[in-house]
Amino acid sequence: MDKALAYTEQHFDRFVDELKDFLRIPSVSTDSRHAGDVRKTAEWLAAHLKVLGLSKVDIMETPGHPIVYAEQMVDANAPTILVYGHYDVQPPDPLELWDSDPFDPQVRDGNLYARGSCDDKGQLFMHVKAAESFFKTGGAPPLNVKYIFEGEEEIGSKNLPAFLEQQKQLLDADVAVVSDTALFGSGVPSITYGLRGLAYVEVTLQGPAIDLHSGVYGGAIENPINALARMISDLHDDDHRITVDGFYDSVIGLTPEERATFASLPFDGEEWVREVGAPHSKTEKGYTALEGTTARPTLDCNGIWSGFTGEGAKTVLPAKATAKISCRLVPGQTPQEITDKLEAHFHKHAPDTMKLTFTDLHGGHGALVPTDSTAMKAASDAMEGVYGEKPYMVRCGGSIPIVADFKRILGQDTVLMGFGLDSDAIHSPNEKFGLDRFRAGIDSIIRFMSLYAKTN
Amino acid sequence: MDKALAYTEQHFDRFVDELKDFLRIPSVSTDSRHAGDVRKTAEWLAAHLKVLGLSKVDIMETPGHPIVYAEQMVDANAPTILVYGHYDVQPPDPLELWDSDPFDPQVRDGNLYARGSCDDKGQLFMHVKAAESFFKTGGAPPLNVKYIFEGEEEIGSKNLPAFLEQQKQLLDADVAVVSDTALFGSGVPSITYGLRGLAYVEVTLQGPAIDLHSGVYGGAIENPINALARMISDLHDDDHRITVDGFYDSVIGLTPEERATFASLPFDGEEWVREVGAPHSKTEKGYTALEGTTARPTLDCNGIWSGFTGEGAKTVLPAKATAKISCRLVPGQTPQEITDKLEAHFHKHAPDTMKLTFTDLHGGHGALVPTDSTAMKAASDAMEGVYGEKPYMVRCGGSIPIVADFKRILGQDTVLMGFGLDSDAIHSPNEKFGLDRFRAGIDSIIRFMSLYAKTN
Repeated sequence: MDKALAYTEQHFDRFVDELKDFLRIPSVSTDSRHAGDVRKTAEWLAAHLKVLGLSKVDIMETPGHPIVYAEQMVDANAPTILVYGHYDVQPPDPLELWDSDPFDPQVRDGNLYARGSCDDKGQLFMHVKAAESFFKTGGAPPLNVKYIFEGEEEIGSKNLPAFLEQQKQLLDADVAVVSDTALFGSGVPSITYGLRGLAYVEVTLQGPAIDLHSGVYGGAIENPINALARMISDLHDDDHRITVDGFYDSVIGLTPEERATFASLPFDGEEWVREVGAPHSKTEKGYTALEGTTARPTLDCNGIWSGFTGEGAKTVLPAKATAKISCRLVPGQTPQEITDKLEAHFHKHAPDTMKLTFTDLHGGHGALVPTDSTAMKAASDAMEGVYGEKPYMVRCGGSIPIVADFKRILGQDTVLMGFGLDSDAIHSPNEKFGLDRFRAGIDSIIRFMSLYAKTN
Repeated sequence: MDKALAYTEQHFDRFVDELKDFLRIPSVSTDSRHAGDVRKTAEWLAAHLKVLGLSKVDIMETPGHPIVYAEQMVDANAPTILVYGHYDVQPPDPLELWDSDPFDPQVRDGNLYARGSCDDKGQLFMHVKAAESFFKTGGAPPLNVKYIFEGEEEIGSKNLPAFLEQQKQLLDADVAVVSDTALFGSGVPSITYGLRGLAYVEVTLQGPAIDLHSGVYGGAIENPINALARMISDLHDDDHRITVDGFYDSVIGLTPEERATFASLPFDGEEWVREVGAPHSKTEKGYTALEGTTARPTLDCNGIWSGFTGEGAKTVLPAKATAKISCRLVPGQTPQEITDKLEAHFHKHAPDTMKLTFTDLHGGHGALVPTDSTAMKAASDAMEGVYGEKPYMVRCGGSIPIVADFKRILGQDTVLMGFGLDSDAIHSPNEKFGLDRFRAGIDSIIRFMSLYAKTN
C-alpha cells in the first residue's frame, strides 16, 4: 500500500494529464451526433486499462452505448470488489456560460474545469489510477477487482439492469464500489449509506374542450389552473406532510442513532439557506433541513404550464393545465407503490368539472446500505487514513437507481465513496473537480483495497 | 323611415359588395407591417362617407392609428347620437385554420366569412348603410348624427380617452350608440345594458436564487409552484366565492327584477355546458351560470408557468413560478380598487419562504346603462319592429371599456345594439357575420334613428 501511495505521489501530474485526455473526448450520451465520441471514449478507456496489464479488458455491447468491462483476479480466496463508474457526460449547454471550453480541460486555482471532470470521468479515473499504482509497484492489487464502466448513466442507465441480469456470474463480487457522490462538505470526509428513490408523474386537468374567452365563460366554467392549483395545494397539510393516503406507510424511519448522527454533522442550516438564496427553509414538521433533504420523502412540482404565458394580458380561460410532479422516496417506499397511491389520490380528488389524465413518467428505487459491514469499515478506515479524521456516515437526497439494482440483481451492497462537492456544478456550466480531491480519492481507494483485502 | 327601409331592401346586394371591399383591406392594428393598410382603411371609409353627402368628414390624427370622424347636423333642437365603431381588426392567425382567405370575403350558407366581418367592420357598416338609406330617400337622417370610427380597438383603444377629452365639444351628444356586441342567441333579439370590467395582474413567487436539484434540496426548500398553487387555491372558498378582503364591497348587486329577467331568458344551462365541452359548470353559490358569467365578479388564472415543461422528466426544483390572474368586475367595482385589494391580499398571504412580485398589467371599467331611458326605449321598439318581439335586456360578461369612458368623459350613456353571435368566431379563424343579421342591423338602426328622433 505504501509503495502504491508513493507511486501516486510521484506520478500525479501525469495522472492529471491523462485525465485531461480522457475529458477531451465529448462523450455526450444523450446526443446522437456524439454517438461516435461515446464509443471512442469507451475505446480510449479500454486501451488505457489494457496497457496497465489487466488480465481481461472487453468492450461489451448493449442495445445502446457499450460497457467497458475489465478484471484482475488474483486469488480465489481473496475478496472481490465490483467497481462501477460511467464514462458518459451531460451535454455542455449553455456553452456561453463556460469560462473555458468544456472539452478543453483547464486547471485554475487547483480545480480542473471540464464537462465530466467530477461527474463521473474524474472519479472513475481515480479507480483506474489506484489500480495502476498497484500494478506498477507490487504487481496486482491485493484483491480481485472487476470494473464496469457504462456509457448511459446520464440517460437513465436503461440497458444496465438487463446487462446485470445477463452477466450475473461475470459480475459476481462481495461488494460494489461507486465513486459518483459528494463529500459532506469541503474537507469533510463522508461515506453515503442512504439514497432516495423517485416517482415522477404528469397530471393534466381539462375542463372545456377548447380555450375560452374569460369574459364570456368566466364565472360558470371552472378554470383548470385554479382547479389544478387546488389539487396541488391539497397535497401538503399545514405540517408540510404529504396528504396522499398511505404515503408514509412503508417509510423506514430514521433511528434515534441516525438522528443523533445527523445532529452532530457540521451543518449550518441558516448558512445553507443563505447560500441557496431563499428567504427561509421549510421542512416537514419535526424534522431538520438535513433530515428533510436526505432521509424524508418529498413531493415537488417540477413544472407547470397552462394558458397564456407571453408578455402582457390575454383574457383566456384555458382548456387545460398540466403539472409535472415528483416524489423523492426513502428506503422502504417503492416507485410503483407511490405512483399507484398518487394516481388513486388524483382520481379520488379531481373535481367533477375536470377530466383527469395521469401519466407515470419515471421511477427509481432508493437504497440503504448497512454501515457496519467489513467493506464499509474498510472504506471508513481508508478515508480516515487520508483525511486524518473518521468520515461521517451520511445520506444523500438524490437518487442512484443502479445501487438498488446491484442489490436486487447481484445481491451486492454498495460502498458509496465519492469525492465531489455540491459546488462542483455537475450538469451545469463550469463543472470542476478539485485536484486535491482527485488525489485524495486515489489515495482513499488504494487504502480501501489494501484494508478490504485483509478482511477475508 | 319606410322609404329608407325600402331602399335598403332594394340595394342590399350592393351593400354586401361594398362591405366586401371594406373587408378586403387588412387593417390589422397590432401589426406594424399593416400600419399602411390601417390608414388605407380609414381613407376608404372617409371617402365612402363623403360620397354619401355627410356635411363633415375628417380623418383625425392620434399618436397611433387615425380616427374617422363624420357628422350631419340637421336641427339644433333634434336629438344627437354619437355612433362608435372600429375599423381595425384582429390578426388572422392561425391562417391554416381558415377555410377561405380571411381578407377575401366569401359568402357560404348565408354567412359572410372574413376577418372583421362581425368584429367590427360589418357592424360599423350597418350604421353607414342606414345613413345612406336616409340620404338617398329623404335627404338627411331625422336627427343629428356624429360618427367616430377608431382604428385601435383591438390594441386597447389607448389613444381614445385622450381624444374624447380633447374633443368634448365636437363629440357632444345625447347618447352613444355602439354595435359591437352579440345577440342573446340566434334569432333572439337583445340589448346589452351591463358590461363587466377587468383587473389583470401578474404574480411571481421566487424561492431560491436559481433552479435547484430536487434531490439535493427537496424537503427543506419550499417549491414555488407548490407555494403559488396554495395561494391560487386560497383565492376561492368552498362556495366558490373570492376570498380577497373587501372584494365584494363595491359590487352593485342584481335587483330582484333583474334576477327574474335572467330566469326568464331562453337559456339552457345544461346545453350550454355541453357545447363548451366541460363535464360540469361551477358557479358562485347562490347564482345561476348566466348570472355568474355576466353579472357576478370572477377570478380566473389566464396563464401559469414554471420549471421544466418539456417532454419527459427533469428533477428540477424551480427558482420561481408565475401566474397571470384576472378578475372580471361588475359595475361598482373599479380596476384600481380590485388591483389594490389583490396586491394587499398577495402581500398578506405570501409565505415567508418566497419573494413576491406583483404587477398590474391591465384594467378596464365595467358599465351599467339605465334601461328606462328614451334612447333604450327607442332601441327596444326598433328591434321589436324588426324581430316581431321585444328584445331582452341582457348583461354581457365581457368588457368594452370605452362605454365607461363615454360616460365618464362625455357624460353619455351608451345603447349597445349589437347583432353578432357568440358563434361568429370573432378573434378566431373563420370569423363570420350572417347576412340576415347585417340586414336586421341596418333595419334596426333606421328604425332607431326615426323613433329616437321623435322623442325630443
